[in-house]
Amino acid sequence: MESLMNSAEEQQASCPLANSWSKTQESSKNQKPKGVGGFVLVHAGAGYHSESKAKEYKHVCKRACQRAVDQLKSGALAVEAVAAALVELEDSPFTNAGMGSNLNLSGEIECDASIMDGKSLHYGAVGAISGIKNPVLVANRLLSEAQKGKLSAGRIPPCFLVGRGAHDWAVSHGIPPCPSEKMATKFSLSAYKRNKRKMELAEKMDTGHNQTKKRRQSSENEYGSGCLDTVGAVVVDLEGNVAAAVSSGGLAMKHPGRVGQAAHYGCGCWAENACNMNPYSTAVSTSGCGEHLIRTMLARECSAAMQSEDAHQALLEAMQNKFISSPFLASEDRVLGGVIVLRCCRCVEAQPSQNIQGILGKTLIVSRPIVLGLHATADGRQRFTHISRLPPGTVPGQSLAIEGGVCRLMSVAELDTPLP
Amino acid sequence: MESLMNSAEEQQASCPLANSWSKTQESSKNQKPKGVGGFVLVHAGAGYHSESKAKEYKHVCKRACQRAVDQLKSGALAVEAVAAALVELEDSPFTNAGMGSNLNLSGEIECDASIMDGKSLHYGAVGAISGIKNPVLVANRLLSEAQKGKLSAGRIPPCFLVGRGAHDWAVSHGIPPCPSEKMATKFSLSAYKRNKRKMELAEKMDTGHNQTKKRRQSSENEYGSGCLDTVGAVVVDLEGNVAAAVSSGGLAMKHPGRVGQAAHYGCGCWAENACNMNPYSTAVSTSGCGEHLIRTMLARECSAAMQSEDAHQALLEAMQNKFISSPFLASEDRVLGGVIVLRCCRCVEAQPSQNIQGILGKTLIVSRPIVLGLHATADGRQRFTHISRLPPGTVPGQSLAIEGGVCRLMSVAELDTPLP
Repeated sequence: MESLMNSAEEQQASCPLANSWSKTQESSKNQKPKGVGGFVLVHAGAGYHSESKAKEYKHVCKRACQRAVDQLKSGALAVEAVAAALVELEDSPFTNAGMGSNLNLSGEIECDASIMDGKSLHYGAVGAISGIKNPVLVANRLLSEAQKGKLSAGRIPPCFLVGRGAHDWAVSHGIPPCPSEKMATKFSLSAYKRNKRKMELAEKMDTGHNQTKKRRQSSENEYGSGCLDTVGAVVVDLEGNVAAAVSSGGLAMKHPGRVGQAAHYGCGCWAENACNMNPYSTAVSTSGCGEHLIRTMLARECSAAMQSEDAHQALLEAMQNKFISSPFLASEDRVLGGVIVLRCCRCVEAQPSQNIQGILGKTLIVSRPIVLGLHATADGRQRFTHISRLPPGTVPGQSLAIEGGVCRLMSVAELDTPLP
Repeated sequence: MESLMNSAEEQQASCPLANSWSKTQESSKNQKPKGVGGFVLVHAGAGYHSESKAKEYKHVCKRACQRAVDQLKSGALAVEAVAAALVELEDSPFTNAGMGSNLNLSGEIECDASIMDGKSLHYGAVGAISGIKNPVLVANRLLSEAQKGKLSAGRIPPCFLVGRGAHDWAVSHGIPPCPSEKMATKFSLSAYKRNKRKMELAEKMDTGHNQTKKRRQSSENEYGSGCLDTVGAVVVDLEGNVAAAVSSGGLAMKHPGRVGQAAHYGCGCWAENACNMNPYSTAVSTSGCGEHLIRTMLARECSAAMQSEDAHQALLEAMQNKFISSPFLASEDRVLGGVIVLRCCRCVEAQPSQNIQGILGKTLIVSRPIVLGLHATADGRQRFTHISRLPPGTVPGQSLAIEGGVCRLMSVAELDTPLP
């Protein structure tokens, strides 16, 4: 593993946005407020992106941003806007979430999703759910039902449902079922057949050898090609509330019933409004290998790091010390993950009646590229879609890239240094 | 809510063991090492204990301790010993785990369990699993399979399985299925019928009223009577490794598919050996309302608190600020939970070849009594079984009691101040 400083220097050299927070924080103070606030940042997954589909990934990110922006414009809270963005990402057959998700070992689709509202700190999640087109809507409904208080006779409402029970709860709450066969795409079905052949071949080759030894030596995931991971979004609304969400079809060829970070509290997403203890509102959504992201609770760690004054440095340190070099992943030959983060604070010179916010949006990747759509709103203009990659020559799983920028809302929201 | 200091003072006055850590730490240094190390602390759940069954609860705690002690004596690691204790707790028809678990809304048993090994920092969990007598064995098997490294063709092994998939994985790994009807007891069946009638009555009374309003006003859980929560154990072995585990049938009348803290990473149990960053090895197991314990990540918070020099004070503050008064539970009228914790360090005067450890074992409860069995081992003697309660006159869900003591291993392990 390279040292933190090496990794940091390396990506700073290759990424013009690195360390832009402190510089742009100053310059943003001289801008005049012009419009209304709110900010959306979505991603369509860290994964092995097919170049031929890059255009489609970017389009779906744009559409997801627009859905969230439309919600914000109509006065919706961040949690509703983030759910709207996720629905669009899930509906795309090109992402590994909802429609077109990876198939599991049995050839079925089982999805994970979760959502967190930074205002109420409520959380909803579903794991290994089948036959529902938009798992994030079930997670969001669990969240909103829990906000209503206790069920009849004082029963405590659930925040996390899995499997058949989650499906039935969704249907009984008006979310329509969707036949599983309609959720598989030509692409996901052919990937499944290809992966199954590869797996059978690998197991055949193991026969007659010391299988345990083989297992330990086999470090390459051969199912990566063409597959994307978890999708997600982070939003801050006009009132300064934050929300985050995440949705995933999980690893290709996963065991039925396997639940990844997308349904795991503190691991897939995190959102926390500023309060007495925390000067900043933060929102995080992660993507990558679920088991790595669970065992390091990466969403919550990144959120905590962003409470530091120098968020850029704190995020680098968190990703290096609590993910890449985490003692919890000491036995892993390489760790896989990407994160989008958002930090928001009220600008110091704003009047109490004004809702001027400074926004820091960043992306951190450790391994595979991540497709991003950033959207500074609510002027209606699409801002950026971008495929974020590790700098050339760096080692996936051992190096870290950080990108992002700062903007100020209540102005026509602007990233000071646009992404390439 | 009372202030931390009030709560702390209150329980210190009523509990002779409070704040014993600093005093006993000194006195333990004057003892001569006599035997071998290892320590077991189990509980049979925070809940509304029937006085008539108190004897049985204490017996099952003793048996669970003995099972873990037997494992330690035979040279097993902490993680194996803690699993053995949990099997005994699950097998008892009197606990809400495994055999005799609470029935869900559909009259079925669905269990959650997890286990964490402080040495490897690996973790295994199952959620909403049916038809398996000992869910902790599935969690433990997931943990040990993950330790072997990747699956064929580089697939990452799961750490968390739910529902039918978890059941099938267990059976395919040699864990025998158990017909669900054999896991229900006369007691759990009659409780189900009683609860169902109560629920129907409550819903009937709601008809014609504003149901949402009713829901918010209904703060009493009427299913508590006679029900116990999650069971758990924490262990340190002869080498100083720690492990923790937890198992639960979940809330009575829960929705099918609901997963509670017992399957949730960082919420149900936590175990972390000492390392460069952490001077102490810590292990935690929680019990109470799953949703409250998930949203506050109580196991991990207590573990972090125990890295403070004054663990007693840090634990009190963690329970007060991060549970009772947590902003994550601001909308709850009262929070429910209990925790057993263990902290272990090498005694300063020990030779490198000696395995002398100082052990701090504590119990913290916020609401309902918790049945404990403490066992300082491995001299084979049973030490204590005890029902820990809030002091008379305090308000459940708003006050905090802390009990426990300190012992030194490599001596005939002794708690300096025995529990009553």
